[in-house]
Amino acid sequence: MRFDIISCQPDLLDSPFSHSILKRAQQKGLAEIHIHDLRKYAVNKHGQIDDYAFGGGAGMVMMIEPIDKCISELQAERKYDAIIYMTPDGQTLNQGIVNQFSLLENVIILCGHYKGVDERVRQHYVTHEISIGDYVLSGGELGAAVLADAIIRIIPGVLNDESSALTDSFQDGLLAPPVYTRPAEYKGMQVPDILMSGDTPKIEQWRFEQAIERTKQRRPDLLNEE
Amino acid sequence: MRFDIISCQPDLLDSPFSHSILKRAQQKGLAEIHIHDLRKYAVNKHGQIDDYAFGGGAGMVMMIEPIDKCISELQAERKYDAIIYMTPDGQTLNQGIVNQFSLLENVIILCGHYKGVDERVRQHYVTHEISIGDYVLSGGELGAAVLADAIIRIIPGVLNDESSALTDSFQDGLLAPPVYTRPAEYKGMQVPDILMSGDTPKIEQWRFEQAIERTKQRRPDLLNEE
Repeated sequence: MRFDIISCQPDLLDSPFSHSILKRAQQKGLAEIHIHDLRKYAVNKHGQIDDYAFGGGAGMVMMIEPIDKCISELQAERKYDAIIYMTPDGQTLNQGIVNQFSLLENVIILCGHYKGVDERVRQHYVTHEISIGDYVLSGGELGAAVLADAIIRIIPGVLNDESSALTDSFQDGLLAPPVYTRPAEYKGMQVPDILMSGDTPKIEQWRFEQAIERTKQRRPDLLNEE
Repeated sequence: MRFDIISCQPDLLDSPFSHSILKRAQQKGLAEIHIHDLRKYAVNKHGQIDDYAFGGGAGMVMMIEPIDKCISELQAERKYDAIIYMTPDGQTLNQGIVNQFSLLENVIILCGHYKGVDERVRQHYVTHEISIGDYVLSGGELGAAVLADAIIRIIPGVLNDESSALTDSFQDGLLAPPVYTRPAEYKGMQVPDILMSGDTPKIEQWRFEQAIERTKQRRPDLLNEE
């Protein structure tokens, strides 16, 4: 899967994509990430890519022309399945959307900044508007990194142990049960006996009950979504 | 405000905190960010910080001992208002929580990895469990960066134009209205006439109506939250 990320702060994205699972996915050839500096498509020699909002008010707006040029250049080279704009008023990301996106081949992710992009970009270029949550960030870069990370880690072959992702929170509509590791006792704090019983069916039953219980307490909304 | 971020992938966090608004906030002395490599507190010379889950199953679990040591060392130096664990089954982050956190002085953010941390850490050390959304990431680092970014940008003095943050989506319970900038026409796409009328009261009225309309269409749940 190929990601083309358009950003006016491309340096922000250096480290998230050059470590850990995202690095491994690229090394294995399972994901390609290309980060494009929007300033290369600036409207003048000063690198201008934003301007004041029509009608006044605080905050700058990202101009349509640099974005049009960058997207057009990419589209001349290949077909894109989605042009995703990261914005707090987009559709709220969830694991179901992540799963769907993971089936695509080529996606563009456009990172907003300042007060956002010129509305005409959203109307005429963008195919999906995604929010990672109900809060505002200083730019879309972290949102783009979150989206790419969530997608890439479920591409088959990326995680070392594929069954690991299937037992994550949300994949079965339940939160994950509690986990414990050694030592069995630490400063008087004990691991539940059942987990050390070696009785696998009972352990699985306990985990299922714990997952239900945790979901009921913390996220009853997930249980009502059927 | 001081952030101590505990991570087993500290390099992941390099670039998000060294650019743009987060860099400026640190330079202005409005935010301090300290990233701690959990491997420095490993249980042996091999740098071990995780182990298999008691009871079996895929995925590794972060051990209690390195986390205890790191948190204890920090707590010996200052009082912390919150020890926040980033986890998909935590309380879902929203702008209200961000606003509350922005009033704190010292916070520890613990990044989960693999299948998460030993449950005893959550029971005995962590004061807040936060999820940035209903999806699973390869680690808590991006979540920590998102949380820190959301908080830091609303600390007074961080944004150049303070009124900018107040007109963000969610701060008034509405999504932001559309924005436009120059040129007024681009490849046949026009900016709405009203925004170029110079009639400020009418423009404000139009923006308010657009914000209501957009919220109704996209996020009617926000309107019912009163």
